[in-house]
Amino acid sequence: MDDIITLDYGSGGKKTSQLIDELILKNFNNSQLLKLMDGAILPIQGHIAFSTDSFVVAPYFFPGGDIGKLSVCGTVNDLLMCGAIPKYLSLSLIIEEGFKTNDLSKILLSIRNTAIECGVNVVTGDTKVVEKGKGDGIYINTAGIGVIETEHYGKDKIEEGDAVIITGFVGDHGIAVMSARNNFFVETDIISDCMPLINIAKIIFKYGTKVKIMRDPTRGGLATTLNEFVEDTDFSIELNEKEIPIRDNVHYACEILGIDPLYSANEGKIVIIAADEIKQQLLNDLKELEEGKNAAIIGKVTKNHKGLVVLKTPIGGSRILTKLTGAQLPRIC
Amino acid sequence: MDDIITLDYGSGGKKTSQLIDELILKNFNNSQLLKLMDGAILPIQGHIAFSTDSFVVAPYFFPGGDIGKLSVCGTVNDLLMCGAIPKYLSLSLIIEEGFKTNDLSKILLSIRNTAIECGVNVVTGDTKVVEKGKGDGIYINTAGIGVIETEHYGKDKIEEGDAVIITGFVGDHGIAVMSARNNFFVETDIISDCMPLINIAKIIFKYGTKVKIMRDPTRGGLATTLNEFVEDTDFSIELNEKEIPIRDNVHYACEILGIDPLYSANEGKIVIIAADEIKQQLLNDLKELEEGKNAAIIGKVTKNHKGLVVLKTPIGGSRILTKLTGAQLPRIC
Repeated sequence: MDDIITLDYGSGGKKTSQLIDELILKNFNNSQLLKLMDGAILPIQGHIAFSTDSFVVAPYFFPGGDIGKLSVCGTVNDLLMCGAIPKYLSLSLIIEEGFKTNDLSKILLSIRNTAIECGVNVVTGDTKVVEKGKGDGIYINTAGIGVIETEHYGKDKIEEGDAVIITGFVGDHGIAVMSARNNFFVETDIISDCMPLINIAKIIFKYGTKVKIMRDPTRGGLATTLNEFVEDTDFSIELNEKEIPIRDNVHYACEILGIDPLYSANEGKIVIIAADEIKQQLLNDLKELEEGKNAAIIGKVTKNHKGLVVLKTPIGGSRILTKLTGAQLPRIC
Repeated sequence: MDDIITLDYGSGGKKTSQLIDELILKNFNNSQLLKLMDGAILPIQGHIAFSTDSFVVAPYFFPGGDIGKLSVCGTVNDLLMCGAIPKYLSLSLIIEEGFKTNDLSKILLSIRNTAIECGVNVVTGDTKVVEKGKGDGIYINTAGIGVIETEHYGKDKIEEGDAVIITGFVGDHGIAVMSARNNFFVETDIISDCMPLINIAKIIFKYGTKVKIMRDPTRGGLATTLNEFVEDTDFSIELNEKEIPIRDNVHYACEILGIDPLYSANEGKIVIIAADEIKQQLLNDLKELEEGKNAAIIGKVTKNHKGLVVLKTPIGGSRILTKLTGAQLPRIC
């Protein structure tokens, strides 16, 4: 391989074959991908979940992760949020001419390691190269297939009195990426929470229909996700600001930048709407996992403010949290 | 919607919701997508095929198609080449800031119409917006799931004496896109062959194990695809140049540009390796379809030139066709 990726590597000819042999198959040598057919043939029983995301995060290496890790976690986590165990991933690369082959290797290794951690196989893929100035290093799309464990989740299941639970600190990913992009707050060591949510989702699956809906609050953050849960319904969500776990350094960075951490992206957290009667047991179970040890009950479902998300402040005030307006943090994932 | 796409539309907040409501759901209003969950839940029986492609074609509108039509046909055709009937698509957009909303509407309508023609549903998706100068209008990824009809295709099935069949004129797509990009040959009206291959694939499926392998020769063209069939095997492919159907205007354009049409991309053709005893019947069946009326038997599998593709010229010479080297036509799909 050359030191940088040239347009030739996207031609479909010899250089493309070389890239596939030396970089892709080295990392993902499962029997499906080795066939190098136009797609993978997979045995499936029952219902599946199918999800996709394109990742355009800038910078593509950031504290706590990189675009490769993110592109596996993002799709794996979306499948889990559908109530599915992730099984198969596709991987499609759009590389800008001049991208360093060494950086591509690092990103593919990160994809490989994260896929192994998640128990998923990269079974099919594609590579395109665009001219210098027509991309930004690398964009990655993954699509994923998972096998449904439980398929009852939906906003139509939400009832008055349900509890709102978050599985850990909010806002880390957005602030970590923004800090890395602008070289802010280097000394405060803000790290993305980017991680697969398999273990934590499996705990949640056990609660069956007592869990009404869950989602990983990525772009738009916690506030936007909660708005999606109650918009166009008869319900509202009331959050207790003092219960929402936010790291000190994230809180500090947000104050300086004038950003609300409730709108900052997360890539390793789940927000859950669960029946009141199981909230304490579920919280206890979550806290036993390393990735759930900072979980908290942060609010409840009411009928007081139809369709709205309301934040109760420690001094007794309240503030309506709308969906994110505008691009607070573009290219965060 | 504003007249142009701004970064706000990729924020995950209100503008993203507006784009989804006004452009996406208007075109793809199936029950799966309407749920707006992190993924789609789909019933599946038996084995599936899973494929993906990212599309970066420039220009995104070209004679005979656009990036939207191409992004459906490309993945649908890949699923067909795996022996599957396509069922579900994901759709992921990477839009450059400043892209015209009107162009986005046209592309989404084209996706909608092509999906209907193919009998597939767009069931899940994603939208990202990147800053001006970090893309080139729009890049589209689709991933697809199909249900396997026949899963025996593979290069290991190829035998000496098998026939090589192409379902129509070769090279149209590559030359049409290149002409559109550079305003060449406008008067000769070269049109992309971009189309779904469902009807033609269904004919081929009927021949069961008598068809050994098939593929749509896209990037790298016919010559590169045939090389993939025989490389690292004991077999060679011998093509009769005079039997290969090439349109006069494509032939003319290739001569002027110094491009070999056998390396120019196709987006609506299949090259088939089939048992000798069925070749004539298969050809007759193909010719009965509008999209197969120019099909031809163009060569055969031999053991004369292990691993190579050899072109027999009309004057009795022969030439080895290697895989495409370098990027003859970058960003053709």
